[in-house]
Amino acid sequence: MSATPILYCSHCGAKVEYRIPPGETVVRAVCPACHIIHYQNPKIVAGCIVEWQGDILLCRRAIEPRRGLWTIPAGFMELGESTEEAAARETLEEAKAVVDIYSLYAVFSLPHVGQVYVVFRGRLRTSEYGVGEESLEVQMTSLDKIPWNELAFPVIREILERYVKDREQPHSGAHFASLSPSSPSHPYEDA
Amino acid sequence: MSATPILYCSHCGAKVEYRIPPGETVVRAVCPACHIIHYQNPKIVAGCIVEWQGDILLCRRAIEPRRGLWTIPAGFMELGESTEEAAARETLEEAKAVVDIYSLYAVFSLPHVGQVYVVFRGRLRTSEYGVGEESLEVQMTSLDKIPWNELAFPVIREILERYVKDREQPHSGAHFASLSPSSPSHPYEDA
Repeated sequence: MSATPILYCSHCGAKVEYRIPPGETVVRAVCPACHIIHYQNPKIVAGCIVEWQGDILLCRRAIEPRRGLWTIPAGFMELGESTEEAAARETLEEAKAVVDIYSLYAVFSLPHVGQVYVVFRGRLRTSEYGVGEESLEVQMTSLDKIPWNELAFPVIREILERYVKDREQPHSGAHFASLSPSSPSHPYEDA
Repeated sequence: MSATPILYCSHCGAKVEYRIPPGETVVRAVCPACHIIHYQNPKIVAGCIVEWQGDILLCRRAIEPRRGLWTIPAGFMELGESTEEAAARETLEEAKAVVDIYSLYAVFSLPHVGQVYVVFRGRLRTSEYGVGEESLEVQMTSLDKIPWNELAFPVIREILERYVKDREQPHSGAHFASLSPSSPSHPYEDA
């Protein structure tokens, strides 16, 4: 489940113990010195399908994991922002593009890595975009030219597959699903 | 932003330093001994509007914060589960009810407390429900009897207000919004 195991209390530095706190049912890291319970929770990856004249914006990753492969603008949400702000920020950082987010598209959970993708649809505000520091290349891509075999993450493939279908025949409501490494169609190696 | 400040490295117990890591733009807790960067991220609260013959299920909280006030089944998502599994688990724990989740209803961010509510709509599978350990009382409530002035959290009020409107005139797509303490209509004391 991807999160680094907690060995020491981040509040007082004592060694933690693993046990089920009173009134709970799950084993937690508990500090025997200052009694804080250290909860570990899934992280949100906020992303955006950025639209412009029928095309969508794809970025080729300049960083690991999956350097050189394609994805939509997406990244870990920070404290102090909303999911839609996080998605717009990632779009600005990775593709130097200002996006107007207009709908919630999908919430996809990856329980095996403790991540939840929250993906919006947005429109490029002007025709301007560029190559951000975390990208090697940024392109407006027509739906029939999506590089299916060079996408960085299976979850992005799953979301874009739905998106292409929805563009042909609109789906009412947002998508939600849980993806696992045992998914038969697209095995999840490490993402 | 609610998260407890990190003072010690949870991996090696050394005192952390606060600085901007190379290639980043945000100040992080960084361990000078083992070089781990300790990211802090928003937490997901997964919840469900549980429907049965036109009514919805409300729980009166037996625990702080907001003991004695009403809410929908909702709670912090755990590692190893999906958002929809978390919402169904909370429904079982708080209202002893088995729910079939059928749509994603809302993603509401509370940046000031580092929380994101992910709320689904679901149908009670059978007529059975009860009072879970974290509830004082659980009731099927008709929409014209929602106790608006006794709801536990402003975000629940915002979501239920939209829900009541949507039941009159369906809204296409899922809702998303960011709520803040300065929201003029419903101040957020401590959410």
